[in-house]
Amino acid sequence: MHQEQRKRTVDLLKQHGINRALFTDPHTITWLTGFAPPIQTGSNLFEGSPPLIWYEDGQFILVVVNNYATQAAHLDQDSDGKVIIYMGYTVQDPLSGIPNLQLTMRELMKRSVARGKVGIEMSHCTLLVSNAMQEILPAMEFVPLDGWLEPLRMIKTDEELVKLRQNFALIEVGHAVARKIVKPGLREIDVWSEVHGAIEREAGCRVPLGNDCIVGYRQQNIGGWPKAHELKADDSLIVDLSTILHGYWSDSCATYFATEPNATHKKLHQTVSEALDMARSLIKPGVKANHIDQQTRQFIADAGYNVYRHHTGHGVGVSGHEEPRIVPYNETKLQSGMVIMLEPGIYLPGQTGVRLEDAYLVTADGAEQLTHHDKRLP
Amino acid sequence: MHQEQRKRTVDLLKQHGINRALFTDPHTITWLTGFAPPIQTGSNLFEGSPPLIWYEDGQFILVVVNNYATQAAHLDQDSDGKVIIYMGYTVQDPLSGIPNLQLTMRELMKRSVARGKVGIEMSHCTLLVSNAMQEILPAMEFVPLDGWLEPLRMIKTDEELVKLRQNFALIEVGHAVARKIVKPGLREIDVWSEVHGAIEREAGCRVPLGNDCIVGYRQQNIGGWPKAHELKADDSLIVDLSTILHGYWSDSCATYFATEPNATHKKLHQTVSEALDMARSLIKPGVKANHIDQQTRQFIADAGYNVYRHHTGHGVGVSGHEEPRIVPYNETKLQSGMVIMLEPGIYLPGQTGVRLEDAYLVTADGAEQLTHHDKRLP
Repeated sequence: MHQEQRKRTVDLLKQHGINRALFTDPHTITWLTGFAPPIQTGSNLFEGSPPLIWYEDGQFILVVVNNYATQAAHLDQDSDGKVIIYMGYTVQDPLSGIPNLQLTMRELMKRSVARGKVGIEMSHCTLLVSNAMQEILPAMEFVPLDGWLEPLRMIKTDEELVKLRQNFALIEVGHAVARKIVKPGLREIDVWSEVHGAIEREAGCRVPLGNDCIVGYRQQNIGGWPKAHELKADDSLIVDLSTILHGYWSDSCATYFATEPNATHKKLHQTVSEALDMARSLIKPGVKANHIDQQTRQFIADAGYNVYRHHTGHGVGVSGHEEPRIVPYNETKLQSGMVIMLEPGIYLPGQTGVRLEDAYLVTADGAEQLTHHDKRLP
Repeated sequence: MHQEQRKRTVDLLKQHGINRALFTDPHTITWLTGFAPPIQTGSNLFEGSPPLIWYEDGQFILVVVNNYATQAAHLDQDSDGKVIIYMGYTVQDPLSGIPNLQLTMRELMKRSVARGKVGIEMSHCTLLVSNAMQEILPAMEFVPLDGWLEPLRMIKTDEELVKLRQNFALIEVGHAVARKIVKPGLREIDVWSEVHGAIEREAGCRVPLGNDCIVGYRQQNIGGWPKAHELKADDSLIVDLSTILHGYWSDSCATYFATEPNATHKKLHQTVSEALDMARSLIKPGVKANHIDQQTRQFIADAGYNVYRHHTGHGVGVSGHEEPRIVPYNETKLQSGMVIMLEPGIYLPGQTGVRLEDAYLVTADGAEQLTHHDKRLP
């Protein structure tokens, strides 16, 4: 699993003369191995560190706490992968995850050459981990690798597309529920909990869910988690859903209405819908990300509205927002195999808001839409 | 808010001659300030680091990304607290959370004395943060503070008890739903999603939820997240719920049955219930944690069952499991103001399991039960 990702990484490291590296960013871990630890209640107190990868001479060694032994085991099947398990919490001893991890790392690295370049993702490497490394390899020369893999992650592999398609199918279930139940008197959290429940029942397991579920009359009605705000007659509800499945994110947005959409709603909805269609029509290999951004903003401005302050879109994969970001400064050219979100909106603060969002796979000559939730006016 | 926690910390640091420190552990951040960032979909890509606290001469300076400005603002109201905000993601520039954080830290520390002791929580301090510190304070002497605050966290403040009581009330709502709906044909995830929905509707906001929801016929039927396993006639379902509210964890467990409990269920349930009653009767100041552990295990053994392999209990607060851990090696004596969970169980692997769990506040002469979910046989 995910051998293509590791191949791309080896090629990059070799170009820079690096044959040892420590990867610590959770997104890197998932991208390189397909393994993703659960996150719904935060970090695991009983482990020494979130999962790490020690890379040496073409081998990717995933170091995880015993809790994740089963979920990580698949990496042992691959010739370029290996899993090493250390013990976290037991009732026999005081918390020993950190010393156990340090011992494991010493064991791993002591066979390594004591000096020379070692690549390292610094943004998620803790002092406890780096100090253990420095004890064993005191003469090593750290080469920061932060951000190096982001460009490699832009082009999705076939394996990733399978995961993403499953995930985009899942959010359809959530949107169908929201579309059906929205009515005056329900609160944002009421809609959200029904949507989340439907998604988890469909998946047959827990599924982390983002992003927004907000009534139009919120002053900051661009985004936010659901609260106890009640839907009123003539109210809009922006429902922006991201599920995380197999460590991959989906994304999607639609706007629903508590009662029959009024004239303002209809006009906003039509304009945003046309902006999204226009933006989609621009997608093809070679087009710059900021061209799509600029054209879409211009479309909204030309229609006589204040232009949304958020991005026009973004890539999606092991993280919810990643390259290529569809923003004013980004000159990155689209390539076949990228998956991007587009999400124009119009917001009348404290009154109403409409946002629509779809996912697209960049193809050889255009775009394939990956989201199929119903975004039409009722 | 949380001034008592900061006072305890200042006292401890002064005893060790430390007047500067960097706190990085998320549990420390919540405990010292009452601020807790949301966690349901993992870390925020757009920040430079999770929240940090720079402590200097009695002042606690919380450094957070702009997304959390509102939720963290209360700390500015306190004479010993201050909030500093740095910008995370904007559409105008490439991701700049990390450089913005580093600039903020330089600004903060440049007025500091260049040499001497600086306390530091190493387990959550990333290299990016520590390198920024070392540039400004190259002659500083790191004093690792990992674990120093855990003992201070054991005695709950009045403010914390208010938060915990609200939280324990919330899980009652979840258990009432589980008790009502459990029946053959439902899957673990079906029960879970109804429970989670009811809790969020009651709270009027998103609420992270742990821990276990497992049918008795799982081979590893001690714990685990809900999956698509279907409840069958004559099946048990262990429902162990932890909500996180205001940054504080609750905990609780009950066992429900798909149909009328059979003779085995009744016997197991009665034994576990008596074990819990016995364990509770031992709670009072001065009793050692491992005495309760040992007595409870002995009770299960004397009843003729294999003794559970997990802890007998644990403290609860800004983390789900904390000191005092009720485990074989722990000689910590209970003190008034501690909040502990007790959770004996009996497991017949692949067949059935029963666990019951309550929370107790240690009082001057015994225990006050904080959980009130119905754990009786139907």
